Amino acid sequence: MLPALTMGDPAGIGPDLTIKAWETLRGRNEAFLWIGDPALLEGRAPFAVVENVDQALAVFDEALPVLPCLLPGKVIPGQPDTAMAGAVIASIEQATRLALQGDVTAVVTNPISKLVLKQGGFGFPGHTEFLASLCGVPGEEIMMLASPRLRVVPVTVHVGLREALDTLSTVRIVETGRALALALRRNFGITSPRLAVAGLNPHAGEGGVMGSEEQTLIQPAIDLLRAEGIAATGPYPPDTLFTDLARPLYDAALCMYHDQALIPLKTLDMASGVNVTLGLPIVRTSPDHGTAFSIAGTGTADPASLLAALQMARDLGARRAMSKETSS
Amino acid sequence: MLPALTMGDPAGIGPDLTIKAWETLRGRNEAFLWIGDPALLEGRAPFAVVENVDQALAVFDEALPVLPCLLPGKVIPGQPDTAMAGAVIASIEQATRLALQGDVTAVVTNPISKLVLKQGGFGFPGHTEFLASLCGVPGEEIMMLASPRLRVVPVTVHVGLREALDTLSTVRIVETGRALALALRRNFGITSPRLAVAGLNPHAGEGGVMGSEEQTLIQPAIDLLRAEGIAATGPYPPDTLFTDLARPLYDAALCMYHDQALIPLKTLDMASGVNVTLGLPIVRTSPDHGTAFSIAGTGTADPASLLAALQMARDLGARRAMSKETSS
Repeated sequence: MLPALTMGDPAGIGPDLTIKAWETLRGRNEAFLWIGDPALLEGRAPFAVVENVDQALAVFDEALPVLPCLLPGKVIPGQPDTAMAGAVIASIEQATRLALQGDVTAVVTNPISKLVLKQGGFGFPGHTEFLASLCGVPGEEIMMLASPRLRVVPVTVHVGLREALDTLSTVRIVETGRALALALRRNFGITSPRLAVAGLNPHAGEGGVMGSEEQTLIQPAIDLLRAEGIAATGPYPPDTLFTDLARPLYDAALCMYHDQALIPLKTLDMASGVNVTLGLPIVRTSPDHGTAFSIAGTGTADPASLLAALQMARDLGARRAMSKETSS
Repeated sequence: MLPALTMGDPAGIGPDLTIKAWETLRGRNEAFLWIGDPALLEGRAPFAVVENVDQALAVFDEALPVLPCLLPGKVIPGQPDTAMAGAVIASIEQATRLALQGDVTAVVTNPISKLVLKQGGFGFPGHTEFLASLCGVPGEEIMMLASPRLRVVPVTVHVGLREALDTLSTVRIVETGRALALALRRNFGITSPRLAVAGLNPHAGEGGVMGSEEQTLIQPAIDLLRAEGIAATGPYPPDTLFTDLARPLYDAALCMYHDQALIPLKTLDMASGVNVTLGLPIVRTSPDHGTAFSIAGTGTADPASLLAALQMARDLGARRAMSKETSS
C-alpha cells in the first residue's frame, strides 16, 4: 500500500518536487504513486506508466510510477495556463477516488494555484474544501498544520481577519476542538490529547481590559469541551503559547484565526510543515507552501515539506488502516 | 555613566532579577543604579546606599548600588499589595527624572503589575504610556520588541483585536513607520533602515479575496512612507514574514496588531526579548516578561531578558549620547 500524489499545477514546482522526492525515497520502501502527465518527466527522470498500485510498488525503486492524467498541451515552467485546470482537477479527483476505494492509503496534494483554477472554472476556495466535497462531507474539513515542533488548528481559516472575528463562535470552537481531539486519538495515536486553547486578544484580554471574547466565547467553549472529557485548557495569552517552554505542555494548539496558528508554525518550521486535513473519511496531507512559479523548473525548490507530507501520509494512513482492522 | 533600574513590583521577580543581574555584571564595567528599597536586598546580596551616579560607579564591583525609594511596609514575595503602588510609581518617576536631567543614560524598568497599580490609583495602561506622559510626549510612545533575531513594532498595541481593527488607519501606520525609521537611524545606527510592512489578513488578503485592508489602508501607507524616502516594502503575508529566510531581508517588521508582532518574537526568543520604547526623549528598555508572582523569591527566575534590556540600554544610551555630541 502507498499514498497517491497529485500533479498540482504543472507550471509550478510540483513536477520538480515530485522528481526530488522520488530520488530521495527510491530504495527505501517508501513508495508513492504520482497521478500526472508523463510528458512532464520526460528527459528529467526515469518513469513508468502503471495501471495500479501493485505495478507502482513493483517499479518504484527503478522508476517513478505514473498513473496517467494527460494535459491538453505543452507546459512552460513558471507560466501557468488556465487550459490545464481540468487536468489538474482530474488528478485530485482520481486520487480521492482511489483513497475512498481503499486502493491507496492517503492523498498527498502538490500545490495548486487558486487563482489559475478559479479562472478555469473551479468553484472552491482551495484543495481542502474541494476534497471535503468529493468525500461527501462538505463543511466538516478541518485544517491542521503539523511540524516536528508544533501542531496547530485554526478555528477560522481562509477569511479576512474582520470576518474571522464576526464568525468566531462558541459552537465553532467546540466543533473544531472535538474533531481535533478525535483526530489526535484516531490518526495520531494520542490516547488523551491535550488541547491548548488560545485567547483571541492581547494577553488573552487581561481580564476583559483588552477585549471580552475570552469570557463570552472561548471560556464557555473550553468548559463544554471539558464536560465531554476532552483535556482542553486556556484561554492562553497567544504570544507566550508557542515558546520552547510552553509547547511540550500540549499536543495541539486550537487557534482562533489563520495567522495566530500559521505565524508560529512557519516561524519555527518553515521547511518541514505539513498541512493535514482532518474531518475527512480519507487521509490527506500536503506540503505547506504554494506553487512557487518564480522558481519552477529551475531545480532549486526544497522538497523538505513534500517529503514530510509523504511521511505523515504514510504514518497516518498506516494508523488509520490498523484502527479499521481493529474495529472491524 | 550608567542606566537606572527601577524597583518594579517588590512582590514580583524584580528583586530576584536585580540581584542576579548585579552578580553577573559586577567586575565587568557594566554598572547600573537600582532605585528601590534596600530592605528587599537585606541578607540576599551586598548592597550600598548611594546618593548619586558617581558613588554607584565606585561601589558597583563590591556592592549593588541603591538609590533609596522606601516602601511603606514589609513585602512577602508572591503576594502583591496595593499599598506599595505609590513607591513603585515613585521609583519610575525618579529614574525618568534622572534620565531627563542626563544623570543616567537610560531607564530600565523592572516588571510591574498593571492590575495592582490600577487598584492603587495608577491611571495609565502601563509603563510605556506613563513614561511618555512623564516625558511630556503623551501619545508619541512606540513599543518595539527586539531580540537577537528580530525587531518588531506593532501599530496598534494594548487594545482588543476588534478595537485594533477599528483603529488601524493609514495615518497611524505612516506615523509609526516614520518614527520607527527615525529610531533605527538615530538609536540603532542603521543608516538606511529597511521596514517590512505586514499585511493584516491571511496571505495579505490574496488580492482582496480575504479582506481589503491591504489595498485600502496598508498599501497607501507604504506609498506615503516611500515618498518620504523610507525603504518600506510590503504588505507581506504575515505567516511567512518571520521565517529564517525572510528575517535577514529587513531591519524591523511593522506589524498591524500586538500578537502579529509578539507571537513571532516570543516564539523565536522567549528569554532574550527586550521591550524598547521609541519616541521618547530618553532611552527606555525593559525585560519582555511580567512580574511572575508565582516564582517570586524562589531564585528560579531567568535574568536573561533583564540582562538583555540592560545591555541594550547601554548600547542605545551610548549611541544617543554620541549623536548629541555630534549634533551640538
